[in-house]
Amino acid sequence: MNIKTYLSEKKTLVENALGQFIPPVEEPFTNHLESVHYSLFVGGKRVRPILCLAAGRAVSDDSAIEEKLLPIGCALECIHTYSLIHDDLPAMDNDDLRRGKPTNHKVYGEAAAILAGDGLLTWAFDLIAGAGDSYLSAQQRLQIIQIIARAAGSLGMVGGQALDIENENRQFPFEMLRTIHKNKTGALITASVLAGAVGGNATASQFSALKQYGEQIGLAFQIVDDLLDVTSTTEELGKAANSDASLGKATYPSYFGIDETRKKAQEAVALAIESLKEFDQKAEPLRQLADYIYSRSN
Amino acid sequence: MNIKTYLSEKKTLVENALGQFIPPVEEPFTNHLESVHYSLFVGGKRVRPILCLAAGRAVSDDSAIEEKLLPIGCALECIHTYSLIHDDLPAMDNDDLRRGKPTNHKVYGEAAAILAGDGLLTWAFDLIAGAGDSYLSAQQRLQIIQIIARAAGSLGMVGGQALDIENENRQFPFEMLRTIHKNKTGALITASVLAGAVGGNATASQFSALKQYGEQIGLAFQIVDDLLDVTSTTEELGKAANSDASLGKATYPSYFGIDETRKKAQEAVALAIESLKEFDQKAEPLRQLADYIYSRSN
Repeated sequence: MNIKTYLSEKKTLVENALGQFIPPVEEPFTNHLESVHYSLFVGGKRVRPILCLAAGRAVSDDSAIEEKLLPIGCALECIHTYSLIHDDLPAMDNDDLRRGKPTNHKVYGEAAAILAGDGLLTWAFDLIAGAGDSYLSAQQRLQIIQIIARAAGSLGMVGGQALDIENENRQFPFEMLRTIHKNKTGALITASVLAGAVGGNATASQFSALKQYGEQIGLAFQIVDDLLDVTSTTEELGKAANSDASLGKATYPSYFGIDETRKKAQEAVALAIESLKEFDQKAEPLRQLADYIYSRSN
Repeated sequence: MNIKTYLSEKKTLVENALGQFIPPVEEPFTNHLESVHYSLFVGGKRVRPILCLAAGRAVSDDSAIEEKLLPIGCALECIHTYSLIHDDLPAMDNDDLRRGKPTNHKVYGEAAAILAGDGLLTWAFDLIAGAGDSYLSAQQRLQIIQIIARAAGSLGMVGGQALDIENENRQFPFEMLRTIHKNKTGALITASVLAGAVGGNATASQFSALKQYGEQIGLAFQIVDDLLDVTSTTEELGKAANSDASLGKATYPSYFGIDETRKKAQEAVALAIESLKEFDQKAEPLRQLADYIYSRSN
C-alpha cells in the first residue's frame, strides 16, 4: 500500500461524512454555524478519524467497518477542532494563525469562537448517540462515548491543557512535560484508536495492543510537533513557528536537544509498530501511519 | 405536599450525587478541578435535575426512579453550570458576580474558566454513558444523550447564546427574542423534563404532554428571569441586576411592560399545568414546580 494515497482517500471519506453529518449553515443560527463550518473545513489532516477507521479495520473482517465508524471519526474531528479553537483564544495561546488561515476568533470574534468550540464539542456526542443501530450497537456507542469523553475531559485533554497554561514560563521536571503531553494530545489520539477497536469488536488482547499502539503514536505525534515548532517556518507549519518558546513552554527539544528528541520519536514509533506484531496485514495502515508520523519530522 | 420541603429534599439528593459523581480535586489536575468544583458547588437551585427527577416520577411506578435518574440530573447540572461559566466570560456577558459570589474567571482567570466549562460539558456525557445498566438501559441512556446534546448544542442553547450576543444593542422584532429565549434557556429545561420522561419509560402521549409542559415551563422561567432582572436588586439576585438593559439586551418587559409580562408568565404556567391534566397525583411535584417558578416573580 501507498500511505499517501491511503491518507488522501480516507481524508476524502471523512470530509464527505463531515459534510453530511454536520448541521448545514441555516437560519436562525447562520452566523454561529458559519463559524463552526469555518474551522471544521479549513483543512487538517484528519489524523484522528483516520486512526479510528484504521484501528477498526485492523481487527474487523466486516467490509463495511470503515463506513460504520464514520460518525465516530467525525465526532473525533469535531472534538479536535473545538480544542484548537479554544486553545487559540487570546486567553489561552493567543494564536492568530491555524492551518495557514486566521484563527476562528480572528474572523468571528472571541465570543463566537468560544461558542463554535462549545457547539462542536456538544455535536460530537449528538452524532455518536444519534448514529443508528445500523452503524454500531447501542452498547458499542455508549462505550465509545465514554472512552472519548474521558479522554477529552477534565481527566484528559482539558486537564492537560489546563496544566499547559498553568506551567507557562515555569521551570519544571521532565515528568510534568510528559503528563501535559499525555493528556493534552495523547489521550484523544489513544481514544481515537480505541474507539475504532470497540467498533471493530476487538478482543481483549487486541484492545490492549491497540492501547499501547495509541499511546506510543500519541507520544510520537507530540514529540514531532515539538520538533516541527523548532525546526519549521511559520509558512511550513500554517501556524506560528517557535510559539512554544515564545510562550515560555517547555518542549522535548528544550530538555533533550534536537537529535536526542528525534531519536525518542523514532523509538516511540518503533514501539507502536512492535505492539501490532500479532496483527495480520489488515493492520498495515496502522503500521504505516506510525512511520508517516515520524517522517513529518524530517 | 409542600413544594419548599420537596425542593430542599431533592436539592440535597442532587448535591450529594454531584459530590459522588464528579471527580475529586486531585493531582495532577488540582487547580483545574478546583475551578470546576467552585462553580458546581457555589450554590444554585438545581432546577434542571429536579425537573428531570419529577418528570420521571410523574410517569413511573418504579420506587427507585429518582435514584436511577441521578446521573442524568447531575449531567444536566454540569451542562447548566458550564453554560453559566462561559456566559459570564469577559468576551460574553462579562459578569463579575454569580449566585452572590465572584464568577469563575474572576477567581481563576479566563483560561481556567473556559476550561472549567469545557470540562463540565464533557463530564456530563461521560457520566451518562458511564452510568451502569442498573441505572438505565443502554437505549435509554443513548436517547437521553441525544436529547440533551441536541438541546445544549449549536441548534439549541449554544445557538441561542450566539444569537443573544449577536443581537446586543440591536432593535429586533419580538419573534427574535422568542427564538433566543427558546434556545438559550428553554431548550435545556425542556430536555431536562424529557430526559426524565425517557428514564421513566413514558408512553408516547405522556412524552408529548411532558414536552408541552417543558416548553411552557421554560418560557415561564425565562420571562420570570427577565422580570427579576428589572425588578430586583443585585443583592437579591446574587448577580448584577439590570444587566440586560446595560448590555443592550431586549427583554419581555422591554416589549410589554411589567404587568403584561407578569401576565404572560402566568399564562405559560397555566398552560404547563394544563398539559398535565391526564396525569395522576404522581405529577403533583411538576404542577407545583410550575407554580413555584411563577411565585419567584412576586
